[in-house]
Amino acid sequence: MRRANRLSARRKSATAAPALVQRDWQLPVYRDDPIEPVSHEGVEAVHNAAMRVLEEIGIEFLHEDALAVLKREGCKVEGENVKMGRDFVMEKLKSAPETFTITPANPDRALTIGGRHFVYGNVSSPPNATDIDRGRRMGNREDFQNFLKLTHYFNCIHFAGGYPVEPVDLHFSTRHLDALYDKLTLTDKVIHTYSLGTVLVEDAIEMVRISCGVSDEEFDEKPRFYTNINSSSPLKHDWPMLDGAMRLAGRNQPVIVTPFTLAGAMAPITMAGAVTQQTAEALAAIALLQCVRPGAPVVMGAYTSNVDMKTGAPAFGTPEAVRAMQLSGQMARFYKLPLRAQNSCAGNFPDGQAIAETMNSLWAAMTSGTNVVYHGAGWLEGGLAASYEKFVIDCELIQQMMAYNDGIGVTDEDLAVDAIAEVGPTGHFFGAEHTQSRYSTEFYQPFLSDIRNFETWDEAGAPKQYEHANRLWKQILGEFEPPKMDEGARAELVEFVERRKREGGAPTNF
Amino acid sequence: MRRANRLSARRKSATAAPALVQRDWQLPVYRDDPIEPVSHEGVEAVHNAAMRVLEEIGIEFLHEDALAVLKREGCKVEGENVKMGRDFVMEKLKSAPETFTITPANPDRALTIGGRHFVYGNVSSPPNATDIDRGRRMGNREDFQNFLKLTHYFNCIHFAGGYPVEPVDLHFSTRHLDALYDKLTLTDKVIHTYSLGTVLVEDAIEMVRISCGVSDEEFDEKPRFYTNINSSSPLKHDWPMLDGAMRLAGRNQPVIVTPFTLAGAMAPITMAGAVTQQTAEALAAIALLQCVRPGAPVVMGAYTSNVDMKTGAPAFGTPEAVRAMQLSGQMARFYKLPLRAQNSCAGNFPDGQAIAETMNSLWAAMTSGTNVVYHGAGWLEGGLAASYEKFVIDCELIQQMMAYNDGIGVTDEDLAVDAIAEVGPTGHFFGAEHTQSRYSTEFYQPFLSDIRNFETWDEAGAPKQYEHANRLWKQILGEFEPPKMDEGARAELVEFVERRKREGGAPTNF
Repeated sequence: MRRANRLSARRKSATAAPALVQRDWQLPVYRDDPIEPVSHEGVEAVHNAAMRVLEEIGIEFLHEDALAVLKREGCKVEGENVKMGRDFVMEKLKSAPETFTITPANPDRALTIGGRHFVYGNVSSPPNATDIDRGRRMGNREDFQNFLKLTHYFNCIHFAGGYPVEPVDLHFSTRHLDALYDKLTLTDKVIHTYSLGTVLVEDAIEMVRISCGVSDEEFDEKPRFYTNINSSSPLKHDWPMLDGAMRLAGRNQPVIVTPFTLAGAMAPITMAGAVTQQTAEALAAIALLQCVRPGAPVVMGAYTSNVDMKTGAPAFGTPEAVRAMQLSGQMARFYKLPLRAQNSCAGNFPDGQAIAETMNSLWAAMTSGTNVVYHGAGWLEGGLAASYEKFVIDCELIQQMMAYNDGIGVTDEDLAVDAIAEVGPTGHFFGAEHTQSRYSTEFYQPFLSDIRNFETWDEAGAPKQYEHANRLWKQILGEFEPPKMDEGARAELVEFVERRKREGGAPTNF
Repeated sequence: MRRANRLSARRKSATAAPALVQRDWQLPVYRDDPIEPVSHEGVEAVHNAAMRVLEEIGIEFLHEDALAVLKREGCKVEGENVKMGRDFVMEKLKSAPETFTITPANPDRALTIGGRHFVYGNVSSPPNATDIDRGRRMGNREDFQNFLKLTHYFNCIHFAGGYPVEPVDLHFSTRHLDALYDKLTLTDKVIHTYSLGTVLVEDAIEMVRISCGVSDEEFDEKPRFYTNINSSSPLKHDWPMLDGAMRLAGRNQPVIVTPFTLAGAMAPITMAGAVTQQTAEALAAIALLQCVRPGAPVVMGAYTSNVDMKTGAPAFGTPEAVRAMQLSGQMARFYKLPLRAQNSCAGNFPDGQAIAETMNSLWAAMTSGTNVVYHGAGWLEGGLAASYEKFVIDCELIQQMMAYNDGIGVTDEDLAVDAIAEVGPTGHFFGAEHTQSRYSTEFYQPFLSDIRNFETWDEAGAPKQYEHANRLWKQILGEFEPPKMDEGARAELVEFVERRKREGGAPTNF
């Protein structure tokens, strides 16, 4: 079936125009300084508060190896509670790199993480898939593969995060094998593994190693993929997350530590309080990982948003969340750590509400100096659904953010005094040579915007943005061509998956 | 009918909950420094280019009085072309105030314009009205009044700009009399007059004077209302605009000068070139107005956006437009002038596209330090339609921008270490006293967001944002109560309108 699909895509691409013209693959670098909502004293205050949480209240580490490491390093360990002094934390942070690269099998897809670099990933981990034709349903492998294809297709999506939708039709014990196989063959971009059990993580490491065609020793030489762990806020790191994080750090692979600090629920209702707790929880795990392997690449994650206080439901893309992200950016720079944020929204449908929330999230990432934008494309419903239409819309909006980041030139040619003189007070610039020579390149060309006038648009059936997006994702999937990959590596991957399936996969009782 | 409406509104408000809970009236002040896309040298380069346009190319002033004034001041006048030296321009700018107030009849509605203040106005000048029930049609007085009622209702809308929709059913010669009467009675916020003819402008001045209950002399003591003029780009100021601007400046009333510099059409295709031309056109008129009355309150308008180069249609809310606005902000601060921008979009329907464009426009205003945000609520279709639903949506988004601008506190109470200690690693913050005491005030409460979970939302018919907005504007209009006003002033206004109608109103052949 895969072969037939490929043939059909080829046939289409020979006869039809491509679904859309997009920006080239690019690793963008922030042109502007971030917005800093609090003063240097304010940053110090958050830092001191976070240090008090670590020193006086402590964080629970539900993993015996983590407790042993931290005890050996001189932390105060009482049961699962660990109190760490600020001197220890700040000392450990010294070995965490400000910037690092992740190099997958295809070195053209290597990412730089940190500094003024920023990258976007696809939506991660929704249980449901949705589109406007079929509505919302539990995710399955076909949806999972489709979202990976969209992830691979769009140049503005730099990495494949967690499962873009949960492939619920795959048995859990072997799901990771099929899912990782799909991720490593349907896209050549940097991928992620969940930290949800030792076997799963070790299988992921092995499969990425195979895809890269390197030995164990070569694998450890540089970051190849990554994991993301969430603290179980408040103040707790669970066993599977710690286990996976320590395994990846031990192999020199990056770990993003993202506390799940919804203000008013798992964290204080005040944004500064939630960011304080977020900072403490993130630094606690980061300090541990620097003990496990000094220099291990890490990212500070920021997920702080507020809940709707009428219902307790998480809200996203709120004014408070934008500020929390900007403050998180200040904290990340204070600690010289890369920062993760996300493109999230609460809306249930890709309408004005969801898009406004998304725009706030994207502007929050842009103005906070976020390095890794998780859930960049496809997120809907507070993360409970991956939306095909939203994926396409988000890529349009991300491209716009990247075009914005291109900045504005002020050379003599840009200032165009000669063109103004040439056209004069009665003319029009369409015909000017200055215009004609820049005609097709000066502006970002949105692929999704309907710029027809009202009458033409109305006669065409008054299509909404999500209807245009609906047409586009179908075209893209129809055109899809998987990335080239080493056939030896592919065969080895197939063999590995088959063997591990025969062995039963991963235990499901973690 | 007006009376019946009022009674019905009262009856409703006695029995039903209000349509929505909104933020209080507030004159916000920017908390953050603006984003500055070009260096100080870049600003100097744009300045020098604008000065070269003024010195070497010149601006056409299609008004004999303007030409006479500028000739007397030493400018080089050839026919309608005026070349002004940079020394002259910079000297004249010295008398333009950095900040001023506009005080309408109700002093509680006084606005501060300039510095770090910012205010939002309603949509201005679309020929069409639209809502999702009745679709798009030519504007009429009922729509005009309805949009004024929405303007008055929403505290986040600080002023009433041009006609929120053109009341086409009113005869042009007397339209301004009815329209100004409606503006002065359906809202007590600062209003605008068009500069579309001497009689119209003089009638407007007189009606505002009557509404304020002041003598001619008292009227001139301070700004009471304002006008906005557009240059006829490239490089031209038309007679009616100049006439109205000079009349208002002569009476100490503010003039916003907004070049209509769409890059690639009426201005160079490069954003820096378009802003150069915009700057030259705006400064030319501002210098004139400072000659007419030194110290006359003026605002530099920035409308620069790009066109879609495939169709020539204006595009709004583009990445380039955001940068143009930020550069315009840099120029306005360089000249120590207040800045006007707008909340514009190209979309034909309040769907994701229009809202994304709107969000870019609002973030552009926020990050450029814009002082006056024109077309804040209700703009659709590149300004060709005023949308009832978009008006409500925009007010939600503007409230969010204002909530964002509230910033983030970092007091010990905000940092909440005690609350974190109290809740500990197994608790939940809902029940904490720190949460409970801030429960209803800590977060901005959106009035338009549907935060129900998918199932509940779906069972409720899966309403879109614009459907919620549709319900709200009807409730608001049903509840509407006009502002209190001095009955003597009202009677005098009625008498003035009737007299001027008997006299025939304004000539229509300007």
